[in-house]
Amino acid sequence: MGGANGKSGLRVWRNARLATMADGATGLGIVDKGAVASRDGLIVYAGPEADMPALAGQGAETVDCVGRWVTPGLIDCHTHLVYAGNRANEFEMRLAGATYEEVARAGGGIVSSVKSLRAASEDELVAQTLPRLDALMAEGVTTVEVKSGYGLDADNEKKSLRAARRLGDERPVTVRTTCLAAHALPPEAKGDKDAFIDLVAGTILPEVAAEKLADAVDGFCEGIAFSPEQMARVFDKAKALGLPVKLHADQLSNLHGAALAARYGALSADHLEYTDEEGAAAMAKAGTVATILPGAYYFIRETKKPPVDLFRRHGVKMAVATDSNPGTSPLTSLLLTMNMAATLFGMTVDECLAGVTREAARALGLLDKTGTLEAGKSADLAIWDIERPAELVYRMGFNPLHARIWRGQ
Amino acid sequence: MGGANGKSGLRVWRNARLATMADGATGLGIVDKGAVASRDGLIVYAGPEADMPALAGQGAETVDCVGRWVTPGLIDCHTHLVYAGNRANEFEMRLAGATYEEVARAGGGIVSSVKSLRAASEDELVAQTLPRLDALMAEGVTTVEVKSGYGLDADNEKKSLRAARRLGDERPVTVRTTCLAAHALPPEAKGDKDAFIDLVAGTILPEVAAEKLADAVDGFCEGIAFSPEQMARVFDKAKALGLPVKLHADQLSNLHGAALAARYGALSADHLEYTDEEGAAAMAKAGTVATILPGAYYFIRETKKPPVDLFRRHGVKMAVATDSNPGTSPLTSLLLTMNMAATLFGMTVDECLAGVTREAARALGLLDKTGTLEAGKSADLAIWDIERPAELVYRMGFNPLHARIWRGQ
Ligand SMILES: [Zn+2]
Ligand SMILES: [Zn+2]
Repeated sequence: MGGANGKSGLRVWRNARLATMADGATGLGIVDKGAVASRDGLIVYAGPEADMPALAGQGAETVDCVGRWVTPGLIDCHTHLVYAGNRANEFEMRLAGATYEEVARAGGGIVSSVKSLRAASEDELVAQTLPRLDALMAEGVTTVEVKSGYGLDADNEKKSLRAARRLGDERPVTVRTTCLAAHALPPEAKGDKDAFIDLVAGTILPEVAAEKLADAVDGFCEGIAFSPEQMARVFDKAKALGLPVKLHADQLSNLHGAALAARYGALSADHLEYTDEEGAAAMAKAGTVATILPGAYYFIRETKKPPVDLFRRHGVKMAVATDSNPGTSPLTSLLLTMNMAATLFGMTVDECLAGVTREAARALGLLDKTGTLEAGKSADLAIWDIERPAELVYRMGFNPLHARIWRGQ
Repeated sequence: MGGANGKSGLRVWRNARLATMADGATGLGIVDKGAVASRDGLIVYAGPEADMPALAGQGAETVDCVGRWVTPGLIDCHTHLVYAGNRANEFEMRLAGATYEEVARAGGGIVSSVKSLRAASEDELVAQTLPRLDALMAEGVTTVEVKSGYGLDADNEKKSLRAARRLGDERPVTVRTTCLAAHALPPEAKGDKDAFIDLVAGTILPEVAAEKLADAVDGFCEGIAFSPEQMARVFDKAKALGLPVKLHADQLSNLHGAALAARYGALSADHLEYTDEEGAAAMAKAGTVATILPGAYYFIRETKKPPVDLFRRHGVKMAVATDSNPGTSPLTSLLLTMNMAATLFGMTVDECLAGVTREAARALGLLDKTGTLEAGKSADLAIWDIERPAELVYRMGFNPLHARIWRGQ
């Protein structure tokens, strides 16, 4: 690959304003007259241009950023991007006054996504997902997490995860896959949640792990989904298989999902509208990231906000993600997601930007590889036509991306 | 121009699903196997393909839409698109906990937009506005209204309106300009609102009218802006100059602005969060359109919603617009605006789509020229990669536009 970027595989972006987002730096880690250099896809320097080692002499290809801002490539750390069809019809019915029962009777709800996904081939799933992935990438996303969870049997969960992996072959983007088999009860389970958890822990997870299709295991802990005890069984199996865990926790009620996630050393607990102080303290202690998902809060017209102040007080790191999914967050803009986190939850500009870079990387267990502009990490950059980073959060429905670099290219 | 579209200036879009949005049609005016034909920029046929006159033989250039949906080109009927700089810094300060006083002391608020606009040349205004216009057009907008209101003296109001007119020379889009000199009090007025209204009615409006720079006159009727009596003086002058009027009404309190607008036969009254039943009834009687602006409601975290049900009950037509502006709605997506109108205010899919086509045209006094797919109107079309029109309202941060046609091109 070296040959593509000048003789030595060296590239330099100079005359840039950097928001390095480095852990421990003040605020955004701003460098006013900065430069980034990469060799063979990895950052070898990020800092003041004046202090950069003399790489130009080594045949580096140099890009003049003309004062533009450079941030780490954005990371969407919670999506359900692989699905078939959409649920615009339910949205329309509900706005026209239909009750949830009427929508369900018309075949709506998550069951409709399960049915569509099962009917779609792996190729069809990839084809239907690529436009959504392209929308994210057009705004500078270089890493995206993708969950299964509409298959709900071994073959269809594996099909979803294979489709997710293939997104990374089709596009220059890092894809992390998460097995969310414990998402909902499929129709054939006939209401027996314990039996379905047996299937998840006994068959689906082992098969997924054997084929190395998932980088993590997730579940939906909620009255309408699975209990903490059922999720604990899933997590025990994940641990046995060597897979890190995450949890959809405390979205609609407080089942103490945050504390459960922390007890298992989860990478993240996500949603968290109903999390209490005990949960926040447990997450802080365990180093579990709080993934804030304002798109779902907005779309389902939730009124209870996640306890951002509690997370601040306890030092819980906060990521921000789209939760892109057909039922509760048909959202494919991480810029808009930041605006929602600020406008709806009062997160600051610095928190929002950290939430889609450094903390999103942490929520995926990838902080050693991406998420900040620091030597040794992947050269994943977003270059912006803006005067100040706050514009990335302030605007709604505007994309100021100038260029997107993934692994140095 | 005829030569560009085949020998006869005829173009046909066939094999399409139409949402004609025709007034009086049921719902969206759907035609399943439809076609649209234009000659020299005007629609000559829109309806079932089977019933289309034999235009192909006349040398028409034919486009196969392969079953795609075709709607009227979208219309953003309320924007403050021409401005200089932005107010991301205030947004950032407020999220970091600054009070309105602290923001004002740091030079923030509308005064900062006035200062920036006055300092910018007409060329600079055009250059800074084009990316925002391009964002709207990329989602199928073919007509956009643009207000002045950051100049607040004759020269700077005229500069803004000239810049707005020039947008229509720079891009294939219909621009309608509105003089909003009665937007706010400039610093040099030293608090004397009546004297400023004298300037607006006595100097600014006559000069603007003499140079034919505005298609309508608008004002901001609110405790923090101008009283109903002051607005009435502005409207009297507008009427004398032969210009139709509009009003920013009842956004933050009920000063009976809706009723005032109706009394003057206004094209529209806009915002309307605090409008009461008397106001709605007056608007219905006068044929004044209610322009719903969910972006500002969302961005300033307003909690009082416009009385959509009252408007329905009284038969008030509803338009939906971005209110694109740097202080309270930095929004440049009409698709997202529809989602907000549905999600935040419960407007139906049909109401949202009518609100950015037919009713937006009505709010601009342009319903005879655009806003629906009907013979005799401008061939302004948006062609979409969607399975059903509801997708245009349901998705967030996704642009399914396949092609945009303005005046047949
Ligand atoms: Zn989710
Ligand atoms: Zn406005």
